[in-house]
Amino acid sequence: MKPGHSLMKHYLQFKDLRAEEYAYLFERTRIIKTRFKNYERYQPLADRTLAMIFEKASTRTRVSFEAGMYQMGGSVVHLTTGDSQLGRAEPIEDSARVISRMVDIVMIRTFGQDKIEKFAQYSRVPVINGLTNEFHPCQILADLFTLTEYRPAPSGDPLDAIKGKVVAWVGDGNNMANTWLQAAEILGFTVHVSTPGGYEVDPKVAGISRGDCYKVFADPLEACRGADLVTTDVWTSMGYEAENEQRRQAFARWCVDASMMAVARPDALFMHCLPAHRGEEVAAEVIDGPQSVVWDEAENRLHVQKALMEFLLLGRIG
Amino acid sequence: MKPGHSLMKHYLQFKDLRAEEYAYLFERTRIIKTRFKNYERYQPLADRTLAMIFEKASTRTRVSFEAGMYQMGGSVVHLTTGDSQLGRAEPIEDSARVISRMVDIVMIRTFGQDKIEKFAQYSRVPVINGLTNEFHPCQILADLFTLTEYRPAPSGDPLDAIKGKVVAWVGDGNNMANTWLQAAEILGFTVHVSTPGGYEVDPKVAGISRGDCYKVFADPLEACRGADLVTTDVWTSMGYEAENEQRRQAFARWCVDASMMAVARPDALFMHCLPAHRGEEVAAEVIDGPQSVVWDEAENRLHVQKALMEFLLLGRIG
Amino acid sequence: MKPGHSLMKHYLQFKDLRAEEYAYLFERTRIIKTRFKNYERYQPLADRTLAMIFEKASTRTRVSFEAGMYQMGGSVVHLTTGDSQLGRAEPIEDSARVISRMVDIVMIRTFGQDKIEKFAQYSRVPVINGLTNEFHPCQILADLFTLTEYRPAPSGDPLDAIKGKVVAWVGDGNNMANTWLQAAEILGFTVHVSTPGGYEVDPKVAGISRGDCYKVFADPLEACRGADLVTTDVWTSMGYEAENEQRRQAFARWCVDASMMAVARPDALFMHCLPAHRGEEVAAEVIDGPQSVVWDEAENRLHVQKALMEFLLLGRIG
Repeated sequence: MKPGHSLMKHYLQFKDLRAEEYAYLFERTRIIKTRFKNYERYQPLADRTLAMIFEKASTRTRVSFEAGMYQMGGSVVHLTTGDSQLGRAEPIEDSARVISRMVDIVMIRTFGQDKIEKFAQYSRVPVINGLTNEFHPCQILADLFTLTEYRPAPSGDPLDAIKGKVVAWVGDGNNMANTWLQAAEILGFTVHVSTPGGYEVDPKVAGISRGDCYKVFADPLEACRGADLVTTDVWTSMGYEAENEQRRQAFARWCVDASMMAVARPDALFMHCLPAHRGEEVAAEVIDGPQSVVWDEAENRLHVQKALMEFLLLGRIG
Repeated sequence: MKPGHSLMKHYLQFKDLRAEEYAYLFERTRIIKTRFKNYERYQPLADRTLAMIFEKASTRTRVSFEAGMYQMGGSVVHLTTGDSQLGRAEPIEDSARVISRMVDIVMIRTFGQDKIEKFAQYSRVPVINGLTNEFHPCQILADLFTLTEYRPAPSGDPLDAIKGKVVAWVGDGNNMANTWLQAAEILGFTVHVSTPGGYEVDPKVAGISRGDCYKVFADPLEACRGADLVTTDVWTSMGYEAENEQRRQAFARWCVDASMMAVARPDALFMHCLPAHRGEEVAAEVIDGPQSVVWDEAENRLHVQKALMEFLLLGRIG
Repeated sequence: MKPGHSLMKHYLQFKDLRAEEYAYLFERTRIIKTRFKNYERYQPLADRTLAMIFEKASTRTRVSFEAGMYQMGGSVVHLTTGDSQLGRAEPIEDSARVISRMVDIVMIRTFGQDKIEKFAQYSRVPVINGLTNEFHPCQILADLFTLTEYRPAPSGDPLDAIKGKVVAWVGDGNNMANTWLQAAEILGFTVHVSTPGGYEVDPKVAGISRGDCYKVFADPLEACRGADLVTTDVWTSMGYEAENEQRRQAFARWCVDASMMAVARPDALFMHCLPAHRGEEVAAEVIDGPQSVVWDEAENRLHVQKALMEFLLLGRIG
């Protein structure tokens, strides 16, 4: 840490930051994105190195973190399970101690949340969750920023654009769903969750303390009714491929289609963290339709993560 | 694209650029190479990121594009099929839309030309062909630049160094052969093609419109007679390994040896895109002999690609 | 090579540099490390590219060279056996000629020392040994620098901190042991070597000319008696996994534990190149105890290699 930046933070779950820190991050993202679009060079991380550790495949997380770090002037070391030995040939504690001596910040995509928590415990530098079985906070950060761009509040405060909104989560009670619940609790909105039986969200796994941030719906159509944002994910997330056929059957009715969008608010947005399987979790008419903002949502991974790395490494600017 | 650079171009086939654009590229390559050799720092791509997508293994294309981008001040994200999901877990269209939101330029090495054409169609940023089953334009760009270096025209015009020349292609009617045909049509030279039966070039696949840019020879020795440049490639290109034994038999007479070089012009050059298999498509006495310029040819990949990326990203300089 | 830097050097074995060059490297390392800790930007390699070729897996060597190059302002191309074709699809000579035309310096981790020696013979740029079956000079460079940090000489001369010391090597007579022997011969200290029968060091393989730089002990406890530094390595190095079970039995007594540290000098240090297997070659009480300096040792790989690359590329500074 640079002298003056007193408190090292990790970003392992959405609840690792407070509402007012999110307000700051959304504001910084807006500035960083605008400058970038105007080809204004801004390289505050010019002597910093990010290590990325991937134990699951990735395109979006890989490209957005790596290109984002370069655009901020920094450098990236990309480690995959093949190269490295996270928890295999040596204890995670040792990998954390060694790697965090050599780089300035670490992003990890792995299986269990316990692995990244243990890594962070022994790391000298900030650690970012780039997806675990339990959480995917960087994606929700991008989704919420996208919401503030498309539906800004009259006050101009990004938190006002989010507060009180209804987000419909249709599909698997997975890491994305868990993270939406944490975000709802912290930022004051409501998640309408509809999952097939056996794939429910578990508030204990999600790590939320109040039950009033989400409502469960047996029928996905009812979950979408009146929603400001409808969102879903693939039926089979990475690591669950063996359950593929069983999931196809269980999730058949959890396909976001025009009928679901029709009961949402007229100005409702559709989001998807991608890759998408048209005809499975989402109809082509929705993801390729006028309410879909999935490409901006994907691009915003780049910008929110730049703001996040800047914040974790340099603290508040200005 | 930077404001002011109005027309986005891709480089998917040799014919994607016109003769006068090649004249410009050869001239820029000469300047960029000279500056580099003199340790003059030149970093016009300092805030640009190249994504490289490899679906086939590579050393030369990998190192030349990556080091070239660094030498121009830019950054590189290197994706392999293992990391990414080009056309597998998600449609190529979606990958193109997402990746081209995050980086400034994309290089792809893949199988079918149709994959790269589709990617380019949905990309917001320039796409470069780093080898497909059908074409390898960056290699021919390097080969022709090397020719202009070794055999400059009295006029100083690089196109004059190429116009009217005879290039002997000995061996497989593959992506290199197709690209030579396109180059001959655009830049006004003649290719003498000699392939075993069953491995002929197909002008439809090569995408040429006139038949007068090449001549077919049954005997490879006759193809080399009077040539200014003799060139060949491995008998079995990547992706055709299953045909290896069959090809060894079919190609046995298509080995560039001293007897072939003896009937070429006395100042004829020998080129090979490498890796080379001495004793198969080329005799050691040729590739390691005085007419061979294969190491300069390999190095020139670096410099022509720097000029190409500069042109695609920044347009004409000065 | 930059004009003015007349003599290209490789670093393939510890004996490739002389004692006074090591004195210079330790001094530069100290300066480079201090500046880095103070966040003073120092980027003398800003237009240089390192190619790293890995034919064995790596975390420490990978991260330390890559992050180190970035911290010095340079760039890195990371090639693995999967990407490249070192000695497989093309002769090593050809790979060396091509790669060394495109980058400024090359680091190789491979199997036989003969492969790296042959690569260096055909390379136009400096080549660094990042571990072979026979040698691991960068690790010993880091270990000795760590010794000069923890036990500086009253004279301030780093070589005085090393001269006359006793280093106990407990375990496999492997690449680390060989390199310790070379270092002892050049820098004037003594290695106490204790290995199980059948795993002895071979002075011919180690490439030392005098026998007085090391003593062999049948009992590892006796090797540690009076030592200034006790060090070991995993029982089964990379490439020898098939011998794993046989080695576990043979090495059972070669575990550095508290009893061994008790007979060493009271201020003796413990080092390990990592990854470590607690309960095998080292007891947890030792590696996690107060005499262990393994995390600083690991971090110092970063700093000594920065000094090494600076020296090989730019010669002596100031």
